Amino acid sequence: MVARANSVVTVERVEEVTVELGPRSYQILVGSALLPLVGPRVAALGHRGRCALVTSERVGALYRTPVEASLRGAGFDPVVVELPDGEEHKTLATLERLYGALLEAGIERRSPVVALGGGVIGDLSGFAAATLLRGVPIVQVPTTLLAQVDAAIGGKTGVNHRTGKNLIGAFHQPRAVLADVDVLRTLPRREYVAGLAEVVKYGVIGDAALFADLERGLDRLLQLDDELLVPVIAACCRQKAAVVAADEREESGARAVLNFGHTVGHAVESLTEYRRFLHGEAVAIGMVAAARVSQSLGLCAPTVVERIQALLGRAGLPTELPAELRGPQLAVTMRTDKKVAGGRVRFVAIEDIGRTRTVELAGSEIVKHL
Amino acid sequence: MVARANSVVTVERVEEVTVELGPRSYQILVGSALLPLVGPRVAALGHRGRCALVTSERVGALYRTPVEASLRGAGFDPVVVELPDGEEHKTLATLERLYGALLEAGIERRSPVVALGGGVIGDLSGFAAATLLRGVPIVQVPTTLLAQVDAAIGGKTGVNHRTGKNLIGAFHQPRAVLADVDVLRTLPRREYVAGLAEVVKYGVIGDAALFADLERGLDRLLQLDDELLVPVIAACCRQKAAVVAADEREESGARAVLNFGHTVGHAVESLTEYRRFLHGEAVAIGMVAAARVSQSLGLCAPTVVERIQALLGRAGLPTELPAELRGPQLAVTMRTDKKVAGGRVRFVAIEDIGRTRTVELAGSEIVKHL
Repeated sequence: MVARANSVVTVERVEEVTVELGPRSYQILVGSALLPLVGPRVAALGHRGRCALVTSERVGALYRTPVEASLRGAGFDPVVVELPDGEEHKTLATLERLYGALLEAGIERRSPVVALGGGVIGDLSGFAAATLLRGVPIVQVPTTLLAQVDAAIGGKTGVNHRTGKNLIGAFHQPRAVLADVDVLRTLPRREYVAGLAEVVKYGVIGDAALFADLERGLDRLLQLDDELLVPVIAACCRQKAAVVAADEREESGARAVLNFGHTVGHAVESLTEYRRFLHGEAVAIGMVAAARVSQSLGLCAPTVVERIQALLGRAGLPTELPAELRGPQLAVTMRTDKKVAGGRVRFVAIEDIGRTRTVELAGSEIVKHL
Repeated sequence: MVARANSVVTVERVEEVTVELGPRSYQILVGSALLPLVGPRVAALGHRGRCALVTSERVGALYRTPVEASLRGAGFDPVVVELPDGEEHKTLATLERLYGALLEAGIERRSPVVALGGGVIGDLSGFAAATLLRGVPIVQVPTTLLAQVDAAIGGKTGVNHRTGKNLIGAFHQPRAVLADVDVLRTLPRREYVAGLAEVVKYGVIGDAALFADLERGLDRLLQLDDELLVPVIAACCRQKAAVVAADEREESGARAVLNFGHTVGHAVESLTEYRRFLHGEAVAIGMVAAARVSQSLGLCAPTVVERIQALLGRAGLPTELPAELRGPQLAVTMRTDKKVAGGRVRFVAIEDIGRTRTVELAGSEIVKHL
């Protein structure tokens, strides 16, 4: 909550979260008016010279100018790469195009890549940075609520394969994350609401107080009230940072908790070919489904399911699995998910708001309880 | 030197080298009759069920049967993927095909991939394993001399980009390496000799005794005499293992020593479109070039250049840069190499047989001294 009237850049309402990963630790800034800070922040990491600003056509039209100016102002010579928008472009073909643009621009091993956009841009740029010259630094500037609370943090990068989502990827931690809440005002309403599904997820899986705050303050969040939005996003980032610090590469299982709602959610996205639902919408359906499975297994009370469904419904999110997606093809699709070992799905179930448990289930067992 | 007459598998003349990388440490086995050990070795790492055997058409025709049988015998259900031979196929397009084959076969996060082949197969399979489901285990079974002493060890994986070699890649350590010298008998003579260039490199950069052994024993090596071949390959592996342990991800600079001869070598390969020279042949030319540059800079005596050139020449390797490749395009090509920072090349120079020094040079300075 710093206001510096005499400074060129006025920074208000900024929260800082650290992802503790030893030599790979980094800061997440959450606040307003952060885009002009991108250049100085990247420079502060010790980089100079050539850099790349990767963005989408839509986001680029809105925000590339201030970010590019801030990079130039900090002494960088940025090449801007604009990629097409949309999950259907998160492919090896787009990646190949990005590799070509970065290499032709003369990106070297220490040249930073700045990803300005939503999850698609962040995942594509992150994977390109992970694999170009066997790894160049990346700074994430997420412009969707979903990316700010989830995708931009934790180093998961990747592209889709025709057989499933994010099946090709790498872990590559960013050097910094700058989440500017101002840019959410130009985000299509439907995308913003879809992002709220992941915010609700953090409440469900590990923060009962956040969940209660969301129940009380949902209307203010729907109006993009900064005073609530900044601390809510920061709370999500803190939780994500803690999980990532405990299990950077999804080895101990601690990180699996973040997949709550995603087993069914990913299957819903895949079966509808990523066209009908936004990721957050599919996760909203998946969370209610996961809560119902948990209740059927006797792991949680019916009120838990009701509270989750009510909050998501008030936000305008879908909570019911479309009837035509029920049945065996859902179980088969879940089997192709990454979270599979020996053909069984590691399913994140819920015990109460703020408390989860992982159970191993066959896809057919999950479907049976829906 | 173990002979077990009563065992189903008879193992003779085996040397073991450990790559010390904490939790990612692994063993390299060098010896004869190792192919039947692949299955038991992979099983000993704790894996079961589905696995993939990735090989080339040529190597597959010769050796897939014993390796596949050994995997089945150890309880695995292997899918075999045969890729086309040759550096020109180390591309994103082949990688995409490999991703598809592995995903369609139902490879999961803990399903091991066994790479049976030369550097192209090892690099492609290694990169696929590094990035499929954000990382699956890989075991390298190198079948060329070059791969046995270099490519299969140390976790460098990747594919070529139209603008340069290995520009897309990741570090992904194998779980084990099995280098069976018997398979070298079916290696085309020219490829075997090209591999000797990298063997000579280990002598030059860090093992004067090995270099002297090579000078004395070259004829026996050219006849594939196991009694010399196994300890020579093991000596190379030990040196590579030590360098990798000291600098896993090319961060401290210690690993850069392995690039001796490669700055000019890669440029030669690139300018001749990977058609005229095998990698080892280009490295032979590059090593003599690097020695000459070192001598011109006053870093080493003329006899050092002479000994290197004489040994490589006796092996039948090229040692002269083709006249048509001299000139500015060579310098420009070197600038697109990964080993570039701020436009300057980190060049590995030589002080004496067994001792190197890294100097920063512009591409034009290197060309000038050739």
